[in-house]
Amino acid sequence: MSFASPLIVDGLQYSRWSEEIFRQMNEGGVAAVHVTICYHENFRETVANISAWNRRFEDHGDLIFHGRTADDVRRAHTEGRTAIFFGLQNCSPIEDDIGLVEVLHTLGIRFMQLSYNNQSLLATGCYEADDPGITRMGRQVIAEMNRVGLVVDMSHSAERSTLEAIDLSARPIAITHANPAAWHPALRNKSDAVLKALAARGGMLGFSLYPHHLRGKSDCTLAEFCEMVARTADLMGVEHIGIGSDLCQDQPDSVVEWMRNGRWSRARDYGEGSAAQAGFPPQPAWFRDNRDHRGIAHGLKAVGFDDADVARIMGGNWVDFFERSFGPQ
Amino acid sequence: MSFASPLIVDGLQYSRWSEEIFRQMNEGGVAAVHVTICYHENFRETVANISAWNRRFEDHGDLIFHGRTADDVRRAHTEGRTAIFFGLQNCSPIEDDIGLVEVLHTLGIRFMQLSYNNQSLLATGCYEADDPGITRMGRQVIAEMNRVGLVVDMSHSAERSTLEAIDLSARPIAITHANPAAWHPALRNKSDAVLKALAARGGMLGFSLYPHHLRGKSDCTLAEFCEMVARTADLMGVEHIGIGSDLCQDQPDSVVEWMRNGRWSRARDYGEGSAAQAGFPPQPAWFRDNRDHRGIAHGLKAVGFDDADVARIMGGNWVDFFERSFGPQ
Repeated sequence: MSFASPLIVDGLQYSRWSEEIFRQMNEGGVAAVHVTICYHENFRETVANISAWNRRFEDHGDLIFHGRTADDVRRAHTEGRTAIFFGLQNCSPIEDDIGLVEVLHTLGIRFMQLSYNNQSLLATGCYEADDPGITRMGRQVIAEMNRVGLVVDMSHSAERSTLEAIDLSARPIAITHANPAAWHPALRNKSDAVLKALAARGGMLGFSLYPHHLRGKSDCTLAEFCEMVARTADLMGVEHIGIGSDLCQDQPDSVVEWMRNGRWSRARDYGEGSAAQAGFPPQPAWFRDNRDHRGIAHGLKAVGFDDADVARIMGGNWVDFFERSFGPQ
Repeated sequence: MSFASPLIVDGLQYSRWSEEIFRQMNEGGVAAVHVTICYHENFRETVANISAWNRRFEDHGDLIFHGRTADDVRRAHTEGRTAIFFGLQNCSPIEDDIGLVEVLHTLGIRFMQLSYNNQSLLATGCYEADDPGITRMGRQVIAEMNRVGLVVDMSHSAERSTLEAIDLSARPIAITHANPAAWHPALRNKSDAVLKALAARGGMLGFSLYPHHLRGKSDCTLAEFCEMVARTADLMGVEHIGIGSDLCQDQPDSVVEWMRNGRWSRARDYGEGSAAQAGFPPQPAWFRDNRDHRGIAHGLKAVGFDDADVARIMGGNWVDFFERSFGPQ
């Protein structure tokens, strides 16, 4: 039984996956979710995460399946299931081996961030003091990602590296989960210069619902969020925006500690949090799980978007982007 | 049977190890050699390289043994054997795991470069276009190396990263194999600013005999080399210099290709060479193997060093540095 319109795509989630969450995706009519399968994992550990997803696809085939193409999203919408797309928030799974780019694409990976908060072998993260741009290896890896159809994601990267990645990539890139820094000046949010360059090269921004990226954090209202979307549409064009909720549902606080500290730190790093508020912040009341996407669609109408634009923002733009991005160059 | 004076230490070699080379170390009276056991290897591959050395120690115990302390150098000199000290030319063996610093020290590693030509997770390599200095992870790793007694080596790192490492490290660091850029402006050679800062903080420079680091390359004469040593002693002080020959004896050209390209590149990188001269350059006639160290000692006398200073440069300074560096902080 197919989902109701509009077709909904979430450009990033990292929840503690369970049958309950897959049922909520189904109830919410979410046709596709880009799920994170790596923060700090190396190649072998990432393969173990893929293998855990293979078991989920086997156990819950009535609700979810592994998505690899834009057609899979349309099929999911028609069949009333959710296509799960794999992505990496770090380049750690390719280790120092450019040959692993193609291997990971073959295994179904469709997005890879060039850095996660810290300096990587490819690019600089947004928490480093200084950003020298894309490295020697980074230039080669971008070309290889372009060749095979693995999307460059710069959500956690620093400003200069992001501008250079947009410029160096022969194909449009994505910032799957972030908001404009002009609206809320978090280190993870993006400057107008980045957002304009991203759109000018055909790229996509996914709006984040993670409280540290919202003005007013957990108290941000749906109307304020949708007003920000409208202002960003004015800046970037409505074809270049979608949702990338960064939903981390049901995760224990040990997971956000892992995200921030991995294995690189002996001191405790609190990232966007603080010693006083070290854990996951509470979600806004209007976006707690996958059933709340439709509320965003209503909120977008309320700030003046027409049905066609709401459909674009809720999923249509992501489907178009997937169409152009996941095949060979 | 003990070696003749002076005690000789070579601060870096990466040869195609064989009984013949160990016999030459013995004939040359070389009490200690810091050998490279990693260029691009990850942790597991580095352990395999250690295990290959364990076999060599077992097979050639009359000639070599695993060195871990300054005392081992003195013992080797007295016994007429060569103490082999392990070092890493890259931080790839610690992967993204700061806990591997102590593990590798326990396994006998005594030097680790923070980067090798390219950007690493810790620092920038000398072939990158821009150098943002020591990264967030790099700062923590330097502190951890200081704690356990693993020497920071910046031979292949870029200028700003090197100056910051000298400054951030609570213990003296080393540039095990390089020459002054003022003498021969190779990308791998070091500025006077770096050399002065290195000496001011108690660090050591090992002079390289690798032709790309020599003025005149393979045609550089012993007298020219020793004259350069004398000028560097004027700049840094005679207590801060030694030999780090970078001898790559009997290696096939495939090895220099591996050093330069690892697994990071799909294009061919020629490093200090060129498409026309892609292989190892020929050694100067006066430094072909470990039997030629004594010739350098004579050359140093010929340019005016007294016996005490020759003894310092040929090995005494390295022994003092090992004494201060390899134990817990």
